[in-house]
Amino acid sequence: MTDTNGRDLVLTRIIAASPAALYRAWTEPDLLKQWFAPKPFTVSEVETDLRPGGATRIVMRGPDGTEFPSAGIYLELIENARIVFTDAYVRAWEPSAKPFFTGIITFEPEGEATRYTARVRHWSEEDRAAHEAMGFHDGWGRCADQLAALAATL
Amino acid sequence: MTDTNGRDLVLTRIIAASPAALYRAWTEPDLLKQWFAPKPFTVSEVETDLRPGGATRIVMRGPDGTEFPSAGIYLELIENARIVFTDAYVRAWEPSAKPFFTGIITFEPEGEATRYTARVRHWSEEDRAAHEAMGFHDGWGRCADQLAALAATL
Repeated sequence: MTDTNGRDLVLTRIIAASPAALYRAWTEPDLLKQWFAPKPFTVSEVETDLRPGGATRIVMRGPDGTEFPSAGIYLELIENARIVFTDAYVRAWEPSAKPFFTGIITFEPEGEATRYTARVRHWSEEDRAAHEAMGFHDGWGRCADQLAALAATL
Repeated sequence: MTDTNGRDLVLTRIIAASPAALYRAWTEPDLLKQWFAPKPFTVSEVETDLRPGGATRIVMRGPDGTEFPSAGIYLELIENARIVFTDAYVRAWEPSAKPFFTGIITFEPEGEATRYTARVRHWSEEDRAAHEAMGFHDGWGRCADQLAALAATL
């Protein structure tokens, strides 16, 4: 299930795993590597410095070896409940070349499962549209499938 | 003493007051009102929600009654040492219409005095130049004089 409005892109799923399992999959590098890139892409490097201002850096690698680094910082971390990060800074507090998005990931208990919401906010409607055209829904949706499969084993 | 480089505007002063007094003047609304606007401007409203993601909102009022609100959020607070805030968000975590600057205010003990540094980082050199043309050095310099006079009494 996906939805969009204003400057946001939103993906929501009910996942058969605990908030704690999903939080671990989002924050532990060895777990993050297993689901964060839509296959056949892989994750070759992960850094998760889990504090406000701490670096989050993930390098995805395509089947031909091309690497796609993404770097940003965490803004807020609430264990097992919420992760907020942005590419507006490359480190605390150095502005990036282009502030593009802020990701707000929430894990809400829903019975035995978890409501997983990835809300990606942009500074402009143009950037939201560009992100959608880049394949947001397909990419994040496929990764959410991989995340759900992994979290169910934790 | 002022300096600029790259995308930053920087103001540095040695102030005859403690880091704790300067931190109070930057964070307590009743004190902030006394120095933050270059006279004859005044400060009519102040909100300082002192936590990462907390709101910082200051309304300056001109001699003719015109109000100039500025709103943002704190990114980092280290008591008596450092305050970081930005206008890239209007609240946690809603992107503003235009991410313009990040302010990094530091208070470093230097003998009986304090080295006060206000570093204002922009996302582009164009924005830095625009901020300088808006009168950054004169405005922040006059406010630093007012801050120093107040902090010496705390």
